[in-house]
Amino acid sequence: MAVVSLLNDEEASAEALAVFNDIREARGTDYVNNFWRALAHDPAQLKSVWDRIQSVMAPGALDPLVKELIYVAVSTANGCGYCVHSHTASARAKGMTPDMHAELLAVVAMASQTNALATALGVPVDARFDPEQTKG
Amino acid sequence: MAVVSLLNDEEASAEALAVFNDIREARGTDYVNNFWRALAHDPAQLKSVWDRIQSVMAPGALDPLVKELIYVAVSTANGCGYCVHSHTASARAKGMTPDMHAELLAVVAMASQTNALATALGVPVDARFDPEQTKG
Amino acid sequence: MAVVSLLNDEEASAEALAVFNDIREARGTDYVNNFWRALAHDPAQLKSVWDRIQSVMAPGALDPLVKELIYVAVSTANGCGYCVHSHTASARAKGMTPDMHAELLAVVAMASQTNALATALGVPVDARFDPEQTKG
Amino acid sequence: MAVVSLLNDEEASAEALAVFNDIREARGTDYVNNFWRALAHDPAQLKSVWDRIQSVMAPGALDPLVKELIYVAVSTANGCGYCVHSHTASARAKGMTPDMHAELLAVVAMASQTNALATALGVPVDARFDPEQTKG
Amino acid sequence: MAVVSLLNDEEASAEALAVFNDIREARGTDYVNNFWRALAHDPAQLKSVWDRIQSVMAPGALDPLVKELIYVAVSTANGCGYCVHSHTASARAKGMTPDMHAELLAVVAMASQTNALATALGVPVDARFDPEQTKG
Amino acid sequence: MAVVSLLNDEEASAEALAVFNDIREARGTDYVNNFWRALAHDPAQLKSVWDRIQSVMAPGALDPLVKELIYVAVSTANGCGYCVHSHTASARAKGMTPDMHAELLAVVAMASQTNALATALGVPVDARFDPEQTKG
Repeated sequence: MAVVSLLNDEEASAEALAVFNDIREARGTDYVNNFWRALAHDPAQLKSVWDRIQSVMAPGALDPLVKELIYVAVSTANGCGYCVHSHTASARAKGMTPDMHAELLAVVAMASQTNALATALGVPVDARFDPEQTKG
Repeated sequence: MAVVSLLNDEEASAEALAVFNDIREARGTDYVNNFWRALAHDPAQLKSVWDRIQSVMAPGALDPLVKELIYVAVSTANGCGYCVHSHTASARAKGMTPDMHAELLAVVAMASQTNALATALGVPVDARFDPEQTKG
Repeated sequence: MAVVSLLNDEEASAEALAVFNDIREARGTDYVNNFWRALAHDPAQLKSVWDRIQSVMAPGALDPLVKELIYVAVSTANGCGYCVHSHTASARAKGMTPDMHAELLAVVAMASQTNALATALGVPVDARFDPEQTKG
Repeated sequence: MAVVSLLNDEEASAEALAVFNDIREARGTDYVNNFWRALAHDPAQLKSVWDRIQSVMAPGALDPLVKELIYVAVSTANGCGYCVHSHTASARAKGMTPDMHAELLAVVAMASQTNALATALGVPVDARFDPEQTKG
Repeated sequence: MAVVSLLNDEEASAEALAVFNDIREARGTDYVNNFWRALAHDPAQLKSVWDRIQSVMAPGALDPLVKELIYVAVSTANGCGYCVHSHTASARAKGMTPDMHAELLAVVAMASQTNALATALGVPVDARFDPEQTKG
Repeated sequence: MAVVSLLNDEEASAEALAVFNDIREARGTDYVNNFWRALAHDPAQLKSVWDRIQSVMAPGALDPLVKELIYVAVSTANGCGYCVHSHTASARAKGMTPDMHAELLAVVAMASQTNALATALGVPVDARFDPEQTKG
């Protein structure tokens, strides 16, 4: 159950509908997923998030699939079920194989475990991890 | 300040020292970082974590640098300062450039933001994200 | 699905029922929401939480609507879907408009993003943020 | 210790320095705090975050002080020590009194407690919290 | 809705089925819960997690019921609804009474509250909590 | 560095000093740790938290040491470094041995790992975990 209603095309404002149509064109599908329909109550935020995510997830020094894997990892650690679902689907669409998915989960599980251990042990950061030491 | 003392080589048990030496050999350095020295109070756990991390982070369907990026992302979302430092250092050692670091942070920031929005909006998972629908 | 059964009026102890009736009177409605019906398995905890929340959320240096906005923000960051729902409803009942809701979400999203960046960058606290410096 | 070096004015790129100068002008102080100096390694991200935070935190349906209180609340729940420090300082600069700070903390503590209880009890969302029920 | 399909006995690989049968034998029931059926897509991870959890949760310096209580506490703080359900059920099976459950929740709520307060106040760790001071 | 100054006995109000003295008497030591000195800016909150923690941590269906172990576990998952330190010290004072500490950490690490896996897999709660099924 959503906290706000999910706006369909008729209920969305003109500005929001324009973003829905951008999403459709960018993805080559008529389907607009629930996240955007909930966000459409604030058309300015909807447009801003959509524009930024297009830019952040574009190919660059990291390829788009790697970025999706990172997105799934963060969403898992933040406990966002919706985001885990939608970005796992995106990762699959960008070529994530079952083996890659299994390794992603293994790293997330490993990190979650050592994060807890380092916190429970209060481990102080080693001086050699200080980047100021390497400034000229 | 650590919650337990950091064991130096003289204070470590024989089993813990053997792991310290494995770490030195695997990394080609004499330095053993604080996490392992804190964990050495429980030599069985020390050995188990070290063995597993070697296996999980090894090349596979994902390459080791991608795995480090995922590790940094999870550590950030979990708020583990020590782990962010140590795995950012590992990622650099495995070839992460400043541009890659910048993109990693941009994805982590983006995901953190949409995770919060999806949770605050209570967005229900779209039926099409259900993998059961695609079982034969 | 709850971890414990939700107690109806007949199943609740006399002490729990007295709290249910206090809730009804304070809110001017016969409806007692699920949180209290689950908590009713421990009547002392039920009474203690209800009494404290009445006191904490009362008008003071901050007005009740501002307090509800803060409650929604914390619940989002902690990933508590139930609490996001119930306190967004409370905020609306206390006068939160759609514009206020949109701005609340924009701040929560912004903070989530910079929280992640500050953690990923390990930013040290500026000396000038130290209140001890301003003690006489 | 930061994960990246903190760039001073001489080390910053022209684009980053321009943002530093915007920050100085907007705040009427020569001081640029550490967050921005760390973020300056990615001048585009620096500019984007600064621009967005200016817009998000501006007066609107919610006043700037209320927005700072929400920012502190989210930063606390996300465990970002740096952000708690910097935004508590901002809130004070915008008029937060000790009484308001005390009430802010009381709400954050209260919410953290009931968030945990609702999660531990797995409380299902009440049907009446569904906004779809009120669509015409 | 799961992110991956839940594998039944026919769909599981021979290695995964062997773990399912170990689970059945260890627990004296034919029922294998959903967590393991989802994890079975990666039989090596399935086996590793099952083996480790058997070892970690076995009687030792702490008894198995205490370990389950700790498991529920961590799962609550991490916001894992599934884990709260499954480990609350395990704790009950190992003898957790309603009174013990109530006290567990009271401690989790108390800790969540003071965790938030200590973070919001940025309380520095007292020197006397340093174990290095007590090294000979 | 604290967000507020740590109040010494001279700076504390009469009401806060009375709580400091209760803490001294209850613990049989003259030392009052930093958490309480930071909280003393809000004497009513200070008294309320101290009173409640005394009651919650008292012997009951669970013994005080078990309660401290649960407190450390929650504090770890919530990433509160101060709380991990102070409650690990309390647990030691109440009899936690190094073996018990090692097992506590092993359970916390195990739970953190399976919490992440269950979230990343979106595992649906098994119907048999529903307590409503067992209501008469």
